[in-house]
Amino acid sequence: MSGLAPHRLSLNTATVREQWNLAEAIEGCARHGIGGICPWRDKLHEMGVEAAARAIRDAGLGVSGLCRGGWFTQTGAVDDAVIDDNRRAVDEAATLGADCLVMVVGGLPEGSRDLPTAWALVEDGLAATLEYARKVGVKIAIEPLHPMYAADRACVNTMRQALDICDRLGPGIGCAVDVYHVWWDPELEEQLARAGKERILAFHLCDWLVPTRDQLTDRGMMGDGVIDIPRIRGLVEANGFEGLNEVEIFSALNWWRRDPDEVLATVVERGRTVC
Amino acid sequence: MSGLAPHRLSLNTATVREQWNLAEAIEGCARHGIGGICPWRDKLHEMGVEAAARAIRDAGLGVSGLCRGGWFTQTGAVDDAVIDDNRRAVDEAATLGADCLVMVVGGLPEGSRDLPTAWALVEDGLAATLEYARKVGVKIAIEPLHPMYAADRACVNTMRQALDICDRLGPGIGCAVDVYHVWWDPELEEQLARAGKERILAFHLCDWLVPTRDQLTDRGMMGDGVIDIPRIRGLVEANGFEGLNEVEIFSALNWWRRDPDEVLATVVERGRTVC
Repeated sequence: MSGLAPHRLSLNTATVREQWNLAEAIEGCARHGIGGICPWRDKLHEMGVEAAARAIRDAGLGVSGLCRGGWFTQTGAVDDAVIDDNRRAVDEAATLGADCLVMVVGGLPEGSRDLPTAWALVEDGLAATLEYARKVGVKIAIEPLHPMYAADRACVNTMRQALDICDRLGPGIGCAVDVYHVWWDPELEEQLARAGKERILAFHLCDWLVPTRDQLTDRGMMGDGVIDIPRIRGLVEANGFEGLNEVEIFSALNWWRRDPDEVLATVVERGRTVC
Repeated sequence: MSGLAPHRLSLNTATVREQWNLAEAIEGCARHGIGGICPWRDKLHEMGVEAAARAIRDAGLGVSGLCRGGWFTQTGAVDDAVIDDNRRAVDEAATLGADCLVMVVGGLPEGSRDLPTAWALVEDGLAATLEYARKVGVKIAIEPLHPMYAADRACVNTMRQALDICDRLGPGIGCAVDVYHVWWDPELEEQLARAGKERILAFHLCDWLVPTRDQLTDRGMMGDGVIDIPRIRGLVEANGFEGLNEVEIFSALNWWRRDPDEVLATVVERGRTVC
């Protein structure tokens, strides 16, 4: 398989979150020929949703997703505040014309060891958000996070688990597949086939570093770690995915400290050579 | 469910590996009323296998396992050196009368990104070792490690994956279930039922700390983290497990720095109160 041309890439703003605001990231993508963007909501709110939507459109960028909704377990109850916030996220995704709203569902509630209850909260929250998202025409993408985040970020940790939820909730909901979270899974091939084109809503790239010095912020640039990215991209595309290849790298120790134009130039080069 | 009396506990020597040699650990278990021990092989070799077997017997301790065989992917081939070393481990487990030989199967070979090949190496190595272990009468326990160790320690990361291997290899092989590695798994209940009494060969305790500051050596004492240990112990016992509850805590930042008698007293207290 040949590499990815830059117009097939999308920049998740987390990759340069310490260096650029959203306006700068939009300009950076245009300057480097990157085809799309996925804003985080803090950057989006700072710029203003309407202004951001306009600037992204004017720059000719696609919107591979909006990061993020979810966090349904935070208070131990799926209350109005949580649902209202998720509905606002749906509205923002609609305004941006985003391919999906990415859901980081939340881990164990503070002080809890009760995973089954956390799973139930997550499903209730997703169901309530999905009902609204269907009306607005926004797709919901559950992002199964690596199992090392089960306690503190997301208690949905495999494609199988995410798709079981999708099966129960019906149309309009699928998965965001991030190589960092799923690369180890012996069921990945089978579960991507089960997901199919309709439910692979986003595809995220970075790499798994050995050693990993921090569980959240030591992710690698594509090619610097052990993930066989071409294999996973091949599986995703064999199942019909035609969206952008979104680059999301949390890297406090390396890439967040560099010149952001160097980061984007490296993203473009690695897209061509190792993805 | 009431807590665990000390005679139902076993001490994995890793828990006090910075403080005690094997002879001291055996004496420590006897002094604290702990019912068994699981030596690591470096400690065992240092003491001598025969001498250790005698001392453990004299102290009236059970042997919940021997840590560890495996590491089949280290050189990128299941060669004679790897198989010979695993056969020696089987012999040592037999001499000790250990309930099982625990297998940490190995991650990706150096420089490789090829997980399917690593999986195949592991299965070949397990098959070769199992053939010998059956003759000697030693049970082989695959320990699925947390997915965060897939690259550098073990590419078998779920109970489902381990049991799929067991199904293919036949009798004499099962799983070592460590709460640290499996607590997050939404399939845990179903896979423990699938394993059954014959294939739950060991049960390991510690806790998952939030935050986890080091991926290998920041495991918690039972009760200091987020794992619902009574729930998992209940599932293991409901499926017929009657072995010792082995405490294995890698803790460079805390327990390895403490007086080992304080560590064992804490293990005994937490066994009674939170397990």
